[in-house]
Amino acid sequence: MSGVSEGLDVLLARSSLEDEDQIFKYLYGKRLPKLEFSAEAKELAEKENFELTGYKFEVSNEQLRRPRVVRVAGIQNQIVEATDAPISTQRDSLHQRVGKMIEAAALAGAKIIGLQEAWTMPFAFCTRERLPWTEFAELAENGVTTQFLKKLAAELGVVIISPILERDDKDDVIWNTAVVISHTGNVIGKTRKNHIPRVGDFNESTYYMESELGHPVFETAFGRVGINICYGRHHPQNWLMYALNGAEIIFNPSATVDGLSEALWPIEARNAAIANHVFTVAINRVGTEVFPNEFTSGNGKPAHRDFGHFYGSSFIAGPDGSRTPGASRVREGVIIAEIDLNLNRQTKDSWGFKMTQRLALYGEKFSEAAKADYKPQIIKEA
Amino acid sequence: MSGVSEGLDVLLARSSLEDEDQIFKYLYGKRLPKLEFSAEAKELAEKENFELTGYKFEVSNEQLRRPRVVRVAGIQNQIVEATDAPISTQRDSLHQRVGKMIEAAALAGAKIIGLQEAWTMPFAFCTRERLPWTEFAELAENGVTTQFLKKLAAELGVVIISPILERDDKDDVIWNTAVVISHTGNVIGKTRKNHIPRVGDFNESTYYMESELGHPVFETAFGRVGINICYGRHHPQNWLMYALNGAEIIFNPSATVDGLSEALWPIEARNAAIANHVFTVAINRVGTEVFPNEFTSGNGKPAHRDFGHFYGSSFIAGPDGSRTPGASRVREGVIIAEIDLNLNRQTKDSWGFKMTQRLALYGEKFSEAAKADYKPQIIKEA
Repeated sequence: MSGVSEGLDVLLARSSLEDEDQIFKYLYGKRLPKLEFSAEAKELAEKENFELTGYKFEVSNEQLRRPRVVRVAGIQNQIVEATDAPISTQRDSLHQRVGKMIEAAALAGAKIIGLQEAWTMPFAFCTRERLPWTEFAELAENGVTTQFLKKLAAELGVVIISPILERDDKDDVIWNTAVVISHTGNVIGKTRKNHIPRVGDFNESTYYMESELGHPVFETAFGRVGINICYGRHHPQNWLMYALNGAEIIFNPSATVDGLSEALWPIEARNAAIANHVFTVAINRVGTEVFPNEFTSGNGKPAHRDFGHFYGSSFIAGPDGSRTPGASRVREGVIIAEIDLNLNRQTKDSWGFKMTQRLALYGEKFSEAAKADYKPQIIKEA
Repeated sequence: MSGVSEGLDVLLARSSLEDEDQIFKYLYGKRLPKLEFSAEAKELAEKENFELTGYKFEVSNEQLRRPRVVRVAGIQNQIVEATDAPISTQRDSLHQRVGKMIEAAALAGAKIIGLQEAWTMPFAFCTRERLPWTEFAELAENGVTTQFLKKLAAELGVVIISPILERDDKDDVIWNTAVVISHTGNVIGKTRKNHIPRVGDFNESTYYMESELGHPVFETAFGRVGINICYGRHHPQNWLMYALNGAEIIFNPSATVDGLSEALWPIEARNAAIANHVFTVAINRVGTEVFPNEFTSGNGKPAHRDFGHFYGSSFIAGPDGSRTPGASRVREGVIIAEIDLNLNRQTKDSWGFKMTQRLALYGEKFSEAAKADYKPQIIKEA
């Protein structure tokens, strides 16, 4: 990865810091203790050459509720085969690769495992080409990827959140979808991306439309999960709706490159955890993907065949404002957090944002402001 | 300030950092160039012993719009007199002190100057006592503080945002209010706090009620300004409504202490700048305020007479995700940013959050979710 910065955490680790604990408190709210994993988990990660890290969030004991401790994981990975390899080869290689990472996450105790956006394919929407990329689309309910994961989920006893390119069986329409697979191997349901970017190389709005499935939350054996796909993280109201529907953990499977969103990345999912008294799991893919045909980026620069470095840096944020350090900026990895879902309500009771949010007022105001004849409330000097 | 940490920026400045520029890019989006100020401004700051810092945000040139460059300031200060001094002495000393800071901000070129929450008084709501603290309340339109600032604003040709404890002349009711004073010396209008905390020592909901004045935005000679007072920063929908009403800069005058909100502080106002394509100015008071009578904090700890260290750390964030370093964590200070308001639309066009925000959908969903019989959209395994 010569030429690509390894990111904040590596640079800080190499620095000589004045009062390291205080610095990490300011950066991450708390310096969360690291998790220890089984030799088996560590060996698999080492053998397969991906990072495996984990942290534990702090929580207070309660007398009447038992702890609801669960380990959650985010997996960030590169593509395996070149983008001009046969589609089935590209996809199968990702199944195998990410399958190993899921296995390591499970060995490390994770019970809810989130994958990155459109994980079975390169992020080919930058190309604006249809074939072969649309061939990666498959049925959510029983496409080849879902079949693969159902088996794995049942074997390992884990919930898997699988964001894929979906082709529906009604109109042949393409969607950006996340499938939620139970630890029993059943599909609990699916959700689709609510906000589609029309930004730079993210030519996604020409591939799929905004979801009309709402903001479903999935009740798993280990907690209630919402999935805010990628660009939806820029919309605080999207996170809020998942929380209003009862999400305890909101995953944000993403694909975003340096030079574009990196200043926003550590802010948005963490703000969402704070504002909504939930845990959030921000997952970004990693690496650079090179495409067969050159394309332009609407920025006056020469045509090229890649659109930048996916900077990984996946992290997990808690309702109390604390967060884990980021996963590697350059390597594949599994990042795990041991969380007690009771922390959500403890923080909710303490900070009270839910009680003070004046939701009816905002429902009314947003509806007014959405109308074409809305008159903004502007006060001028008399 | 022995025993109180000087904060992230001081600790980093004292550290030996590996690739400092990269670290600051990850922390602050960009390493913004520092502003140079006149000798007169610097001398005043030095003489009066407060920090004076400033940064310049980057923007692209446009052909058809002229730059709309303005310097904005946030002022963080301590109380001057002890809290058992006569009310008028406490208030007048703050007028004189903050008057000097406003003067320095103006000498440094600031045209819109924001003060901290309830700047004319100690943050006495922790005590739960009425007298003498309610005596600090005054009329927004022509109370003694507004009279003082009207003169100063006209003399210096600056807009001043003055958050005070307001006593209305209709019902004698108390409000948490910000008065906006034009550079001509006229009052443009006032706004009130929309979300009142019921948290820890912030016993504010027993002093004043939630505003019913909406989310007014004030058209000043230098830009359109919204004011999101303190705890309103925890509510993304509050920031959004100011932006929908046309705010270009949203001030967040605050009063918040360490151990409580510090993990959230760098996140929320910055997230709001990003999500809404606006500049935000986050202002926190600084120092420790000791009260005549002891009080308890609902945390099982012994009674005491202060409720912690106000950690300053005021900063200014831009729509592109970049932000200034924080003002001092322990000293009084004026922090200034030179901004071009054109950056808001440039970022809006680039990122497109406004176009993709689906406001009508959320208006409807929030209204539904606010009803007592709302059924959350939860999907269970079949």
